[in-house]
Amino acid sequence: MSASSQRRLNYDNINPHVKAAKYAVRGELAVRSEEYRARLAKNDTSLPFNQIVSANIGNPQQLDQKPITFFRQVLSLVENPLLLENEDVLINSLGYKTDVIARAKWLLEKVGSVGAYSASNGAPAIRQSIADFLERRDGYPANQADIYMSAGASSGVNTLLHVICAGPSSGVLVPIPQYPLYTASLSLLNAQCVPYYLDEAHNWATDMDAVRTSLQEARKNDVDVRSIVVINPGNPTGASLSEEDVEAVIELARAEQLVIIADEVYQTNVFVGKFHSFKGVLRRMQEKNPGKYDNVELASLHSVSKGMVGECGHRGGYFELVGFDPQVQAEIYKFVSIMLCAPVVGQCLVELMVNPPKPGEPSYELYDKEYNGIYNGLRERAVALHKAFDQMEGVECGEPQGSMYLFPTIQLSEKAAAAAAAEGRTADEFYCLKMLEATGVCVVAGSGFGQKPNTLHFRTTFLAPGTEWVGSIIKFHKEFMDTYR
Amino acid sequence: MSASSQRRLNYDNINPHVKAAKYAVRGELAVRSEEYRARLAKNDTSLPFNQIVSANIGNPQQLDQKPITFFRQVLSLVENPLLLENEDVLINSLGYKTDVIARAKWLLEKVGSVGAYSASNGAPAIRQSIADFLERRDGYPANQADIYMSAGASSGVNTLLHVICAGPSSGVLVPIPQYPLYTASLSLLNAQCVPYYLDEAHNWATDMDAVRTSLQEARKNDVDVRSIVVINPGNPTGASLSEEDVEAVIELARAEQLVIIADEVYQTNVFVGKFHSFKGVLRRMQEKNPGKYDNVELASLHSVSKGMVGECGHRGGYFELVGFDPQVQAEIYKFVSIMLCAPVVGQCLVELMVNPPKPGEPSYELYDKEYNGIYNGLRERAVALHKAFDQMEGVECGEPQGSMYLFPTIQLSEKAAAAAAAEGRTADEFYCLKMLEATGVCVVAGSGFGQKPNTLHFRTTFLAPGTEWVGSIIKFHKEFMDTYR
Repeated sequence: MSASSQRRLNYDNINPHVKAAKYAVRGELAVRSEEYRARLAKNDTSLPFNQIVSANIGNPQQLDQKPITFFRQVLSLVENPLLLENEDVLINSLGYKTDVIARAKWLLEKVGSVGAYSASNGAPAIRQSIADFLERRDGYPANQADIYMSAGASSGVNTLLHVICAGPSSGVLVPIPQYPLYTASLSLLNAQCVPYYLDEAHNWATDMDAVRTSLQEARKNDVDVRSIVVINPGNPTGASLSEEDVEAVIELARAEQLVIIADEVYQTNVFVGKFHSFKGVLRRMQEKNPGKYDNVELASLHSVSKGMVGECGHRGGYFELVGFDPQVQAEIYKFVSIMLCAPVVGQCLVELMVNPPKPGEPSYELYDKEYNGIYNGLRERAVALHKAFDQMEGVECGEPQGSMYLFPTIQLSEKAAAAAAAEGRTADEFYCLKMLEATGVCVVAGSGFGQKPNTLHFRTTFLAPGTEWVGSIIKFHKEFMDTYR
Repeated sequence: MSASSQRRLNYDNINPHVKAAKYAVRGELAVRSEEYRARLAKNDTSLPFNQIVSANIGNPQQLDQKPITFFRQVLSLVENPLLLENEDVLINSLGYKTDVIARAKWLLEKVGSVGAYSASNGAPAIRQSIADFLERRDGYPANQADIYMSAGASSGVNTLLHVICAGPSSGVLVPIPQYPLYTASLSLLNAQCVPYYLDEAHNWATDMDAVRTSLQEARKNDVDVRSIVVINPGNPTGASLSEEDVEAVIELARAEQLVIIADEVYQTNVFVGKFHSFKGVLRRMQEKNPGKYDNVELASLHSVSKGMVGECGHRGGYFELVGFDPQVQAEIYKFVSIMLCAPVVGQCLVELMVNPPKPGEPSYELYDKEYNGIYNGLRERAVALHKAFDQMEGVECGEPQGSMYLFPTIQLSEKAAAAAAAEGRTADEFYCLKMLEATGVCVVAGSGFGQKPNTLHFRTTFLAPGTEWVGSIIKFHKEFMDTYR
């Protein structure tokens, strides 16, 4: 008997639902890219590239993006409140504005120490600030008691799916392609993912007929479909829903009694059209049709990780519940309390995100310049990358609309597919692995997000600065196509 | 049909395992205490007290405890690296020492921006720092690849139980009384909690006969017992295991093939005796008995929330795995990657905790003074509170040994039990509720942690400063006993 087989835990006896979960965004390719990065750091010159470009994950500050000064100045003060004993030094020698100091004092007054646990659902004053933001954004009141702060939006999704899914027959409609957090969480919960395909031919629009077909099919198979996930703007697709699209989802949710999970973490990453929040659209529908939509249940998520904030490492986020049963909310409260509270510095950052400097305030000018600089930079990079894809044989990609990603289709030869199969990989995984090995650029295969049968894609962020890495992809692609022609 | 009944989610159809989870530390009493706090803040004078003392949860900085200056100075710099452009101002005008600046630069070099996601299991350099600490602490090497950083220890426990428990028949031995994270997490996973009673008559020692009896009983009932949780020093008991106790647990784990989950978050909160880490004891046993203990699997947890650090709000922690199967570790890595990474500022704080200023370094003197001040303050408060319990009729409490809690036995009359039953409460819950209503002091009933049948307890932290609140408990207790005599 080998030593390994005498261990209590082995691959065959641990939780099968953990094993079933897939999360390609940080999977094999990402791990391998980190190995390459470590080799480069040790001056290994045997690799055909001299840098790793992590285009696999929306992680702006790992690449070029600088944090917004106002945010970080305030956070430096909440971390070390003793600095506030030297306001003159802060102002005269370190360039801190008076509104930075005022905000830090306000946060400290409300939160106490950022080293203390807050209320389980987040510091009350910060939840009120979020409610005020939602009211400004949507034109309808929001209640701080319906807001639950979370460690990034991911932890909020985990909470919501935990409460909604009651057993193996519970199902949730998930767009395909999707951010794999949803399928992974449903696997862990041993609940059913009910996929609905987005319409690539119409720039990844939400096709309500496809949703209805999936729903009916699942119900025919005795799946108790309880909820629909909508990612708007889309990840990985970037697609932004029109107001009519949002209305159609709400109408379906009402008619079919589905809880709406609106993943709106990219709400400010919109290049084409306009962001329409589910909350705002729902409130308008309720106003126009008294009584009709009163029982629609909506959970809307937001995060400091995306947008122009890009503060992924701070793990800040929240969700707002609309129309939920108070007893269900009490269970949600208990669930989040088991992990005590979201990181308090992250909570402070959420407050800064939803309540940034206003025109006329001392920090406004710099904030505005930095914010717009990031926004424009992202759009320019998206357009440049899109142009590059246009030149590549067998690659098609819709116009960049939003989020932080492009998700091109790739057509690969039968020879490439056979070479992939010989390695036990799908053709898109094989392609992405070869890209990493040749260029140091790490992207994620479309199969990590789901895609229609017989289609292949990859997802890349457009966060990385410079054009060299884009050139290296073009070159790799040409060589790959030639090799497997 | 009422509006509520038309909602998709209601108390009767949500996840039953969420409903089954209990977490009294942040339950009804804690919620009510926050309502009282809000009323006091609005100058409500109708309450019979003028402050809330949150003795329900080990949250030092919510009460009196000041953060350690070195930690927070470094964190202010990693939050706002632009401050490092003015080192002279930091040093000459703000009192930052050169080792603060050096550490911040080192962290920023290794982590990049604290606003970026780190590796899923934590920043490699910080994991190496933890490994170095473990090697110094235990005298045996540690490997950074076996360390997984987490959002506080709670999230680490969640990860471990998720992987270990494979289905409804999987069981985990949990000490009673225990920190309710364990029972709550097992409820969520629909796995079996196999309780073993600690020995109150011997100051809450771990009674190996009791463990064996529970284990055999559970196995007789077809529970697949896979793991044993040991909280050392104990929560809520404060008990600290001797080296022989730790050896006995390891011996049992070997003989019975149980994965050891060693919750060692109170490792520096020891007043009586000495902390013996499971890792250190295991390595010594392995050295003395070559081969015999090679397959023991140990997961050891630590946190920035407790000890003299007390930085709960930063949600920093880690666990180290010893003897785990590499394939199992790969699944643990995937599981943690789904939530992306632990808060990066919290990771930096873990680094500072395990690698504080050393004698001779510029920040050492202040650090040492602050650290010892907190340690001595905690011990003094524990002793004072213990003395108070000694005066109270029907209250018995062992000598304070460690952690942040006392867990006295209370003997209540049949009349009190009947009054409690009339309100649908246990007698200890009733007592604690009356205490809150009379004094503003929030403690947790023993039933929240588990206790032997026909015994009653409550848990209180000894973190709150001052003696007034202790006096108010003595007065309340006397009145309660007289009322229900």
